[in-house]
Amino acid sequence: MECGEPVEQVAIRPGMSVNELVVQLSRAGAYNGGALARAADIYERMLRDPETVKFFGLAGAMVPAGMGKIVSDLISAGHIDILVSTGANLTHDIIEALGCRHYHGSSACSDIELRHEEINRIYDVFLPNDAFITFEQFIQESLALLDPVATYPIGELLSLLGRRLDRGILATAAQNGIPVYCPAVADSMIGLQCWLYSQSGKISVDAFLDMKALLDACFCAKRAGVLAVGGGVPKNFILQSMLMTPNGFTYAVQLTGDRPDLGGLSGATLDEARSWGKITEEAAAVTVYGDATITLPVLVAAVLERMAQ
Amino acid sequence: MECGEPVEQVAIRPGMSVNELVVQLSRAGAYNGGALARAADIYERMLRDPETVKFFGLAGAMVPAGMGKIVSDLISAGHIDILVSTGANLTHDIIEALGCRHYHGSSACSDIELRHEEINRIYDVFLPNDAFITFEQFIQESLALLDPVATYPIGELLSLLGRRLDRGILATAAQNGIPVYCPAVADSMIGLQCWLYSQSGKISVDAFLDMKALLDACFCAKRAGVLAVGGGVPKNFILQSMLMTPNGFTYAVQLTGDRPDLGGLSGATLDEARSWGKITEEAAAVTVYGDATITLPVLVAAVLERMAQ
Amino acid sequence: MECGEPVEQVAIRPGMSVNELVVQLSRAGAYNGGALARAADIYERMLRDPETVKFFGLAGAMVPAGMGKIVSDLISAGHIDILVSTGANLTHDIIEALGCRHYHGSSACSDIELRHEEINRIYDVFLPNDAFITFEQFIQESLALLDPVATYPIGELLSLLGRRLDRGILATAAQNGIPVYCPAVADSMIGLQCWLYSQSGKISVDAFLDMKALLDACFCAKRAGVLAVGGGVPKNFILQSMLMTPNGFTYAVQLTGDRPDLGGLSGATLDEARSWGKITEEAAAVTVYGDATITLPVLVAAVLERMAQ
Amino acid sequence: MECGEPVEQVAIRPGMSVNELVVQLSRAGAYNGGALARAADIYERMLRDPETVKFFGLAGAMVPAGMGKIVSDLISAGHIDILVSTGANLTHDIIEALGCRHYHGSSACSDIELRHEEINRIYDVFLPNDAFITFEQFIQESLALLDPVATYPIGELLSLLGRRLDRGILATAAQNGIPVYCPAVADSMIGLQCWLYSQSGKISVDAFLDMKALLDACFCAKRAGVLAVGGGVPKNFILQSMLMTPNGFTYAVQLTGDRPDLGGLSGATLDEARSWGKITEEAAAVTVYGDATITLPVLVAAVLERMAQ
Repeated sequence: MECGEPVEQVAIRPGMSVNELVVQLSRAGAYNGGALARAADIYERMLRDPETVKFFGLAGAMVPAGMGKIVSDLISAGHIDILVSTGANLTHDIIEALGCRHYHGSSACSDIELRHEEINRIYDVFLPNDAFITFEQFIQESLALLDPVATYPIGELLSLLGRRLDRGILATAAQNGIPVYCPAVADSMIGLQCWLYSQSGKISVDAFLDMKALLDACFCAKRAGVLAVGGGVPKNFILQSMLMTPNGFTYAVQLTGDRPDLGGLSGATLDEARSWGKITEEAAAVTVYGDATITLPVLVAAVLERMAQ
Repeated sequence: MECGEPVEQVAIRPGMSVNELVVQLSRAGAYNGGALARAADIYERMLRDPETVKFFGLAGAMVPAGMGKIVSDLISAGHIDILVSTGANLTHDIIEALGCRHYHGSSACSDIELRHEEINRIYDVFLPNDAFITFEQFIQESLALLDPVATYPIGELLSLLGRRLDRGILATAAQNGIPVYCPAVADSMIGLQCWLYSQSGKISVDAFLDMKALLDACFCAKRAGVLAVGGGVPKNFILQSMLMTPNGFTYAVQLTGDRPDLGGLSGATLDEARSWGKITEEAAAVTVYGDATITLPVLVAAVLERMAQ
Repeated sequence: MECGEPVEQVAIRPGMSVNELVVQLSRAGAYNGGALARAADIYERMLRDPETVKFFGLAGAMVPAGMGKIVSDLISAGHIDILVSTGANLTHDIIEALGCRHYHGSSACSDIELRHEEINRIYDVFLPNDAFITFEQFIQESLALLDPVATYPIGELLSLLGRRLDRGILATAAQNGIPVYCPAVADSMIGLQCWLYSQSGKISVDAFLDMKALLDACFCAKRAGVLAVGGGVPKNFILQSMLMTPNGFTYAVQLTGDRPDLGGLSGATLDEARSWGKITEEAAAVTVYGDATITLPVLVAAVLERMAQ
Repeated sequence: MECGEPVEQVAIRPGMSVNELVVQLSRAGAYNGGALARAADIYERMLRDPETVKFFGLAGAMVPAGMGKIVSDLISAGHIDILVSTGANLTHDIIEALGCRHYHGSSACSDIELRHEEINRIYDVFLPNDAFITFEQFIQESLALLDPVATYPIGELLSLLGRRLDRGILATAAQNGIPVYCPAVADSMIGLQCWLYSQSGKISVDAFLDMKALLDACFCAKRAGVLAVGGGVPKNFILQSMLMTPNGFTYAVQLTGDRPDLGGLSGATLDEARSWGKITEEAAAVTVYGDATITLPVLVAAVLERMAQ
């Protein structure tokens, strides 16, 4: 046990850039502020490493909170090679891409009144139910374009949807040829719409077909890195994908609001992932505990500023 | 705004039963102790209601923590009609059913050393890697029994596994004809094994086929109730299943360690679910914040004691 | 790194006692359920050790939540030698001892309406403002009994109040000659009342005078143990009190809802306390993360059951 | 219930200033990112209001984490009129002012080894024990300067210490004539040193004397505002100080890592404070949940940038 660098007191300068602030947090180096600064260092190294396959995990209701454009911009900039998302984020991405909007609301309200006014609540975000009518029409039309005798991987279904949209995460991924995986797609409005379609039409989507392409990518990767926003299925699906290869992730950053002592994977430290071989013994890895609506924009702004220098 | 009953100070009697303690918490009525007591009242009403379809959601690493038998005992007792689980819990259930064990460990340890000794860590639980060799053999043998030209729903794949085991959650569910849904099964060691099998054999598992039976059950249900341990895919997959019906859940209890202000569904209050119509306007619903390794056993012990009276 | 005992799956028996349940949690041994079981083992050893001075730290709004009687009953049973509390808990203890009540309320309500109806809210507990009128009268009368030229330690002020009450924590402590320390007493309604009294009368209370008796007790203690409910001033004031002696605490249990990664002492692990020498190198120590309105009653019920056997 | 503005997707621009980022968060408006943006709006209004007495509450181990200079710079800039702190933050402030340093460490380490090497740990910050020898010498020398027959308010004791230092929070406060209150000063190394001094010397510090000046300031204040970092004694001591006046706080921002459902004041929402009259019915108030080592620098950088425009 040895002391590292001295803690430098954070100095605020009016007008300082986000990265200047993160550099200050780096010199202070403590708690989650320090962890966020280490995350920026790791994410910068990961993005600058041309031989690293870059994974991005997207869990938590991030798109309704306005965090979706950060993801699509990272795709456009070439900073995401493989995206794994919850179905809910993709549902809300489609809704926004179709021109429907989420709205500022309040968490202190009557949910019964909201029900009567046909407004759905996501903490302090409101989403009028109309959006799901537009959404239903889009999905039903899209599914009708599928070949009824073919079996699709989930990723291909999502790619079809993305090609029919002109903005947002799915659209940008489709435009850039970036695969989007969503193993729990059935657990979302997309899943309910597929069920609805299957009442009259025919659709065949395989639960495991995506894994071949994903694991091939993992086997081919010289190195792999991951930025996981939230935990859930995306975090584990990404981390486990390297388990079958001789390697693990070399770079790993997680932004999560959960906590480790409850035992769940969403809050588990990335050190734990070392014991499984999901990340390498020497992996540069850090977990930042906090709300990703704060930590994600700060992290990305800091690292993009460094990349632009 | 009116004051309810006075807060009664909790009285501890040496030797008191778990339900006696929960009754004391009910009279105190505050914070998560009060919420846990309300959860017991709701869960009791749900279990006593013969016309309610009883869902159980299982997320978080509950089986490695010794919470699996509570689930299988609830199935045996007829208290679960439909189980929705993460893939990880089913993986660890199979591991235990095959005679492998999880072990008391520590969260303060070197994960690199653990890696060298081939021990996987889940917070303070250790799982020697050997277990996965036994697991692999079992799954590969099981998959070989599938009809290579048939397409299976995920639930049927899990049912097959359950029928080949003699204890645990999957086995008990199979013995009792209780469906087990796991929409994100690809996100688990079961998923990786299916991929492995598909490298040489043929397996076809549909991502959406389960939804027909599930939604049929929802349409037929006079009333529905849910006990959700953790959030994740199981919580939402259960709650969304009633969205397509004219009804919502009448009883809803969630035990979670997450928090609402981060916006994610795992920590969202059940009130929020009211705005969506996932639960009815009049639903009896409560969220208990805390570690389910404490709240689940206390809740179930209290309610089973009441049912036995 | 070695595996410990196998994780035993928790078995629920209807009618089981609280300690039977905790023994089950002990055999499972994981996450906070396991920590709670270890806390019971440590607290039992501490209570059974005749040569240990037993500290109890009381933070968080525990009395309004009905947890006060657990504390006064522990005092009556001889299980607390030194109590350190926040001022708020003592304020609410006095309010209840004076016959005023806290009431079941709701956290989802209009605080402006509550304000109009003169009801104060503590999460989901309501306290009508009337209580503070009764409280004010009691405190002002009590302070008038003080010798205006004497300087009192805070503990003696509290002892005076306790002697004028016939139930509750302060009363029971006074009856049993147990010192109650409250270093931040100014930060409470008691403090505001003292200020009010000093507008016309004279009162002299020393901020440090209590420390002599406390540290003398620490120097004399062969061993020391602590059960800290919450963190805050009580946790640190207790732990630091052994810093001046050659020893540290031998037994230490903390029940807290905070978390370590934020750096604050309230959520800090007790391991951290080992580096400071607040607890001994070999101390039996555990932190249980969760709401003390659940963990405290379960812990105390289990240990009292063992003591009664 | 009505929908507010649409959620705007956050756009990151490399090199953007901290306030530009916070403005983006304001347009997204969701979860704690949205709360942080609202906090910036409220804090800006508070700092720009010349008739508002500006309180600052400092809890949590902020100085060891490098957050102390933000506080002293706010004092220098005239943005703090009254500071309320925990004793620990002042202890660490003195240590840094005396030239001793805190160091980058790790939370994954052997606390027993640290003990052997005489290094104290605060989560992932290390503080060699030497610092306390320097600290002891300084405090003992300082106390010897006190008039042994006078009775001091705690604030005056702290002011004396501040005048003997040339940098840091206490020094800057003393230089600017800003009162520093620390009602729980006994609960800190300063308290232990006072006890040590009283073993041979004489010192008389009153627990309540500060309240007169504080409440006079509250009665004179046309309006009052507060930025509370963490909860603990500082939050409540500040909020309760307006209870005796006909007014409450008009502006209130809290940055906390605690949570409301546990009932403790540290995690309580500021809405709850409305029911008590601690803040006014119309008060602009917001709680940002998260680690203050992230939220405090972002908040202050954003608001100072606005003030500089």
